[in-house]
Amino acid sequence: MRSPDEFSPRALASAAADILQQLRARGPRVHCITNAVAQNFTANVLLALGCVPSMTLSAGEIGDFVAHSDALLVNLGTFDRERREATEIAVDTARRGKVPWVLDPVFVDRSAPRAGFARVLIGRGPHVLRLNRAEFSALADSAATPDALVAYAGDKNLTVGLSGETDWVADGERFATIANGHALMAKVTAMGCAGSALVAAALAVEPDTWSATAAALIIVGVAGEVAAARAAGPGSFAVAIVDALYNLDGPTLIAHAKVT
Amino acid sequence: MRSPDEFSPRALASAAADILQQLRARGPRVHCITNAVAQNFTANVLLALGCVPSMTLSAGEIGDFVAHSDALLVNLGTFDRERREATEIAVDTARRGKVPWVLDPVFVDRSAPRAGFARVLIGRGPHVLRLNRAEFSALADSAATPDALVAYAGDKNLTVGLSGETDWVADGERFATIANGHALMAKVTAMGCAGSALVAAALAVEPDTWSATAAALIIVGVAGEVAAARAAGPGSFAVAIVDALYNLDGPTLIAHAKVT
Amino acid sequence: MRSPDEFSPRALASAAADILQQLRARGPRVHCITNAVAQNFTANVLLALGCVPSMTLSAGEIGDFVAHSDALLVNLGTFDRERREATEIAVDTARRGKVPWVLDPVFVDRSAPRAGFARVLIGRGPHVLRLNRAEFSALADSAATPDALVAYAGDKNLTVGLSGETDWVADGERFATIANGHALMAKVTAMGCAGSALVAAALAVEPDTWSATAAALIIVGVAGEVAAARAAGPGSFAVAIVDALYNLDGPTLIAHAKVT
Repeated sequence: MRSPDEFSPRALASAAADILQQLRARGPRVHCITNAVAQNFTANVLLALGCVPSMTLSAGEIGDFVAHSDALLVNLGTFDRERREATEIAVDTARRGKVPWVLDPVFVDRSAPRAGFARVLIGRGPHVLRLNRAEFSALADSAATPDALVAYAGDKNLTVGLSGETDWVADGERFATIANGHALMAKVTAMGCAGSALVAAALAVEPDTWSATAAALIIVGVAGEVAAARAAGPGSFAVAIVDALYNLDGPTLIAHAKVT
Repeated sequence: MRSPDEFSPRALASAAADILQQLRARGPRVHCITNAVAQNFTANVLLALGCVPSMTLSAGEIGDFVAHSDALLVNLGTFDRERREATEIAVDTARRGKVPWVLDPVFVDRSAPRAGFARVLIGRGPHVLRLNRAEFSALADSAATPDALVAYAGDKNLTVGLSGETDWVADGERFATIANGHALMAKVTAMGCAGSALVAAALAVEPDTWSATAAALIIVGVAGEVAAARAAGPGSFAVAIVDALYNLDGPTLIAHAKVT
Repeated sequence: MRSPDEFSPRALASAAADILQQLRARGPRVHCITNAVAQNFTANVLLALGCVPSMTLSAGEIGDFVAHSDALLVNLGTFDRERREATEIAVDTARRGKVPWVLDPVFVDRSAPRAGFARVLIGRGPHVLRLNRAEFSALADSAATPDALVAYAGDKNLTVGLSGETDWVADGERFATIANGHALMAKVTAMGCAGSALVAAALAVEPDTWSATAAALIIVGVAGEVAAARAAGPGSFAVAIVDALYNLDGPTLIAHAKVT
């Protein structure tokens, strides 16, 4: 059993530093079913951290790609037949091969068909559900409060990583608040999607899904702060955050992490 | 009835400054059916100006997205079955809900099937047709002259926004020339497509389509000039124009606008 | 018959400088069937060098686009039905119209269906096969050695352009090693894909496929070195290499080319 100290803010920052190092050392393969807008940026974010992204959606080959991957992302941002079929195969393969996977139910608050599909997928056991406040409310039929997150995570047996002005990470027992990040992150498309890919990457090297999710959100948030200091607007910010992820080191992470 | 002064160059520059401010204050939702190359850049341009972009093409949900949007862009740059079906639903929904919409008939000069589809769409009443010289000639069976633009716009009951070394904006009665912009804009893919998305955004906050179109082209053109002053080539220019749109203010717009 | 001097390292660097100039002077049309991740970056790389990219995949129009293009790229990075059908039409059209074409068999080492499709395409006579070490081994059933490249190129009657820490270019008789480039190139998605598009562009202005391929790889590699000197990480590197391609000149190419 884990010691209480492992759940401390300091321990989560250390876990983030450790995961950062492991990503670079091990270069995990992360397969991403993601939306058309996010594909390029997501691939570059993963590459910047030493991961090997793949993005195929083809029914004839996605099983093989997922079977040989270390983590899987399913992002619903482009909700077409091809991706729905790819998701069925990918999730089956991930379950059989014990490949950890993350669901990012983009815009379920604006589309009933997506919400329905997301609910089916949640029943199939994603390790992490990464979403924003409006999306959580749509799926949980409840306002996004810390208690609601913990209850939902416990009921569904997964970790919830909720992004917003502050990020919240909950499993059925633990809850952390991460106050890193910068307002410019909301002005760059696919920033949340890339963050979800980073959560998937963290799952590839850290079996504790709650710690992995928190660590990934700390990494993105601190990189966002570093990038904002160099940016003149959202254009240069989107470039600078990739540089920041590439150059990030453990001491910077630990010094900047704002976890409670 | 509008006063003559409203059609003056100075009035258009003021309208652009006003629209810029309204976009940031109101954050309109702009749904974009656009090509695969342009999706990411278009989303980032809209976000930089405070808009909320969405890009779904899925037949099962696009109606809902458009019904709750403040403007619609239909860009033919990727001419696949999915987008054609999405366009049918989106245009029907826009017409029923009085959502203003822009047609960008990319490459109709190089593809007869696109030109045919564009003609059908023009018959369904887009508020604005945003295109370049070659595309206009292909659709209007006429060289792109100021008189031809005004005649075509009057005949089709829409506003024509034509981009080129200088931009022309015509409805059936009014004609403006905008001499803003920079040569690097032609060296970045999807710049015109993003400009069309910005025209759609302007329609969301300004009911006079001619003024809205001119204002959007002034905004893009001035941002291009600001960006060019900071750029070392088309790569850094594409980044800098997003920053410039984010940082643009009314006095800069009015000082730089070159409208006749 | 060509003089031995034409095959010298110095001659290849001069050929690269000449091709760079011709691309800008002639602005060839390059049609790209490429993967969703690479489309935007590829278009911007081609535009930076003065080319006119097009990317349609639509069966109803791709024949016309290819027939009026000066070169064709077929990249298998997104392996969907639409692109496979587009490829059939495009390759037929290219063969009939003597449009030179390049095959980039992305990830054939990780997908048997792709490897099968790539083998069929190789039988249809691409001018150049542009790939990495793992992909070559998967297709040639052989380790990637200089002798294996020359033998394979001779057998298939094409030029092989193999990218890696050093690039190798072989036809059935000639072999060159290019030691340009920078480690950051492997940290930006679609860099290899854009390189393949540049090989296609070079074929549009230089009929000797071996020289054209080597020249394109020299151009990309030298631009990568110039960009790395200005970059703080892979984000700014991806921007800087587009600027570098735009600003590259013959003397810089000749001074930096590392050909043996």
